Amino acid sequence: MTREKLRIGLFGYGCVGQGLHDVLNSSKGFKADIVKICVKDHRKKRRIDMSNFTYDKDEILNDPSINLVVELIDDADEAFRIVTTAMKNGKNVVTANKMMVAKHFKELVEMQGKYKVSLLYEASAGASIPIIRNLEEYYDNELLHSLRGILNGTTNYILTKMYNEGIPYAEALKEAQEKGFAESDPTLDVDGWDAKFKLCIITGHAYGLFLNPDEVFHYGIRAISKFDIQYAKEKGFKIKLVPYVGKTNENTITSFVLPRFISADKYLYNVDNEYNGVITEAAFADKQFFSGKGAGGHATGSAVLSDISANSYGYRYEYKKFQQGTVSNYTRNHKLEVYLRYKDEKDRELFGFEEVSEYFSGKFFKYVIGVINLERLYALREQLGQMDVFIVNTGRKTDPPTPPSEG
Amino acid sequence: MTREKLRIGLFGYGCVGQGLHDVLNSSKGFKADIVKICVKDHRKKRRIDMSNFTYDKDEILNDPSINLVVELIDDADEAFRIVTTAMKNGKNVVTANKMMVAKHFKELVEMQGKYKVSLLYEASAGASIPIIRNLEEYYDNELLHSLRGILNGTTNYILTKMYNEGIPYAEALKEAQEKGFAESDPTLDVDGWDAKFKLCIITGHAYGLFLNPDEVFHYGIRAISKFDIQYAKEKGFKIKLVPYVGKTNENTITSFVLPRFISADKYLYNVDNEYNGVITEAAFADKQFFSGKGAGGHATGSAVLSDISANSYGYRYEYKKFQQGTVSNYTRNHKLEVYLRYKDEKDRELFGFEEVSEYFSGKFFKYVIGVINLERLYALREQLGQMDVFIVNTGRKTDPPTPPSEG
Repeated sequence: MTREKLRIGLFGYGCVGQGLHDVLNSSKGFKADIVKICVKDHRKKRRIDMSNFTYDKDEILNDPSINLVVELIDDADEAFRIVTTAMKNGKNVVTANKMMVAKHFKELVEMQGKYKVSLLYEASAGASIPIIRNLEEYYDNELLHSLRGILNGTTNYILTKMYNEGIPYAEALKEAQEKGFAESDPTLDVDGWDAKFKLCIITGHAYGLFLNPDEVFHYGIRAISKFDIQYAKEKGFKIKLVPYVGKTNENTITSFVLPRFISADKYLYNVDNEYNGVITEAAFADKQFFSGKGAGGHATGSAVLSDISANSYGYRYEYKKFQQGTVSNYTRNHKLEVYLRYKDEKDRELFGFEEVSEYFSGKFFKYVIGVINLERLYALREQLGQMDVFIVNTGRKTDPPTPPSEG
Repeated sequence: MTREKLRIGLFGYGCVGQGLHDVLNSSKGFKADIVKICVKDHRKKRRIDMSNFTYDKDEILNDPSINLVVELIDDADEAFRIVTTAMKNGKNVVTANKMMVAKHFKELVEMQGKYKVSLLYEASAGASIPIIRNLEEYYDNELLHSLRGILNGTTNYILTKMYNEGIPYAEALKEAQEKGFAESDPTLDVDGWDAKFKLCIITGHAYGLFLNPDEVFHYGIRAISKFDIQYAKEKGFKIKLVPYVGKTNENTITSFVLPRFISADKYLYNVDNEYNGVITEAAFADKQFFSGKGAGGHATGSAVLSDISANSYGYRYEYKKFQQGTVSNYTRNHKLEVYLRYKDEKDRELFGFEEVSEYFSGKFFKYVIGVINLERLYALREQLGQMDVFIVNTGRKTDPPTPPSEG
């Protein structure tokens, strides 16, 4: 197979852009020219010569000598304009922008066919962990029961801090912000949006459904209190933010993002700080676990480089599960056992517990453990932020039709 | 990309062959015809109709309508004859035979080029874990410091039994044999041959060197005693059989198979029973961990199916690291800190300890912990089986030039 000579136009020179530059410069096996780097901020001092930069995106998008656009900017709307224009202009694209891919997934898949170009985005989910490529290539013919994991480094860093050092959420968040693991507006991370976007991308390659992220329930860690950590510790659990997607029957899947109790004998228990981890359960390969750094310029940059390299070999996603079309339905009619910490009985009633296995009432907080329906959680999604509650998936099996893999 | 219609000739219908048959029958996304199955034993009753079988290998090898040979027999020499004849006849081949691939690695790589056919063998190392494909595709441009892991399910099952139930080696081995995890002659597994063959295959894709397995030091678990387990438990370790390959400098690698102490905070600690696990350490992606079932018909069959499917898309290994040629030297001049349990001081002297950090002498056994050279271990390889000793890699750093990844 012959390798195409790559002339790259790069958008963005932040943490990941610079990480990519480092990785590319150190790579022995592979040379690609970064012809031009498009950035936004005229005043920012850059660590390489200013002749490398432009402030005009058309200098890259309209340059016929550039055959690959690498998009690493923050702004998802602008990223979408850049990526789609590049594709229309016949350029292949590599991106790490999960929000952009998740929000326009179907359109971006169709455009690849229409304009006969390749769009790769391995770095958009799980950073250094090659999960998308493995789902696309390796689990091609496997009956995948479910996939779950830790996909957001920011919340995992905060939860690790809270657990290890007994500090409150606000303090752990502040530390994460100071260390550059959290944005000044942490909403996307701590409320579970980021994990959801990644989950939706994974779902496209795991099951062939390109879901609208608005259809998927997400809940983050903003409301976690010391009582929740205390409860978890007493029971031998850690709390992790765990996106889940899995089959409810032959042709139907469900998915959601929820905090989850993790016991010490589980793979995810030792996935701490900015690390990510993914567990797949499949009919024949059985349980598999991948773990690696989920954040940081170099880890993400190495995933971007892997896409750039694959591109030079002519690689493109085939969307094999979509082609197969085995899974055609998405449902939120799915039972979950959850821990609900709350204050007000009126709040609890809203959740419509179908079964209750434990109930506790104390001076500082109350909790209930029981079975609820995901559909109900979804219906409450706008109100949850206003209630003094915290929800954790126990991960325990409910009655069928929950698949065995949810155990 | 168009998919080629596959007409498969299958060699072997044991555990993995039947596993593959199950996996193939359950796969929704992919149809391939098994045209004929070649087996050896005329008298054995088969679970499917006898019209599927032949005892004459030429019925497959000389059938021009068969475009893929899947080789899943035990006998490495016969496997080599089948695989090379198939390749010469222009057929693509999928195999799970690690001994065959490791012993003839270079020749098999050259034949793929010469006869323009593809040979895939993902199932030969780590069974269900897609390690070869990831090394080939994903770590293509990464500066890989090292790779280590648990690659032999039989020894891991035995070590898990001994640790959890306090039973002696002979009893654990017997149980493994009864459960089908160990052969009646367990030599290949318990003496570390199997792990070494897998390590050599991995080395080809991780660093581009096709080593003669005879050049690589291996040592197994046959000599382990209750004293070694007791020592490990007191220190909070488990003992695992861990093949290692890593850089000693820019263009040189070393490799070996040795038991290793694993502390509870390490990924490999929880890889028990027939599970396998692989840790990679790389310059930019940092530490990554893959785990999954390392044995069993269905787990191995699913890796074989993944190769069959990749084949239908025209996939072949590019041997990218070999093409890059960055690593050109192999050395055994490498310092290791080991635990040596022994009886006779004369035996100990043979190891030429360069530094000793601990020494213990008791009624039932003695041990010493110190630094030795891998070259010396290799020189002793024929005598080790006759000595009353057991060797465990502590995994602790020695002085440079050992790379930091060996820590």
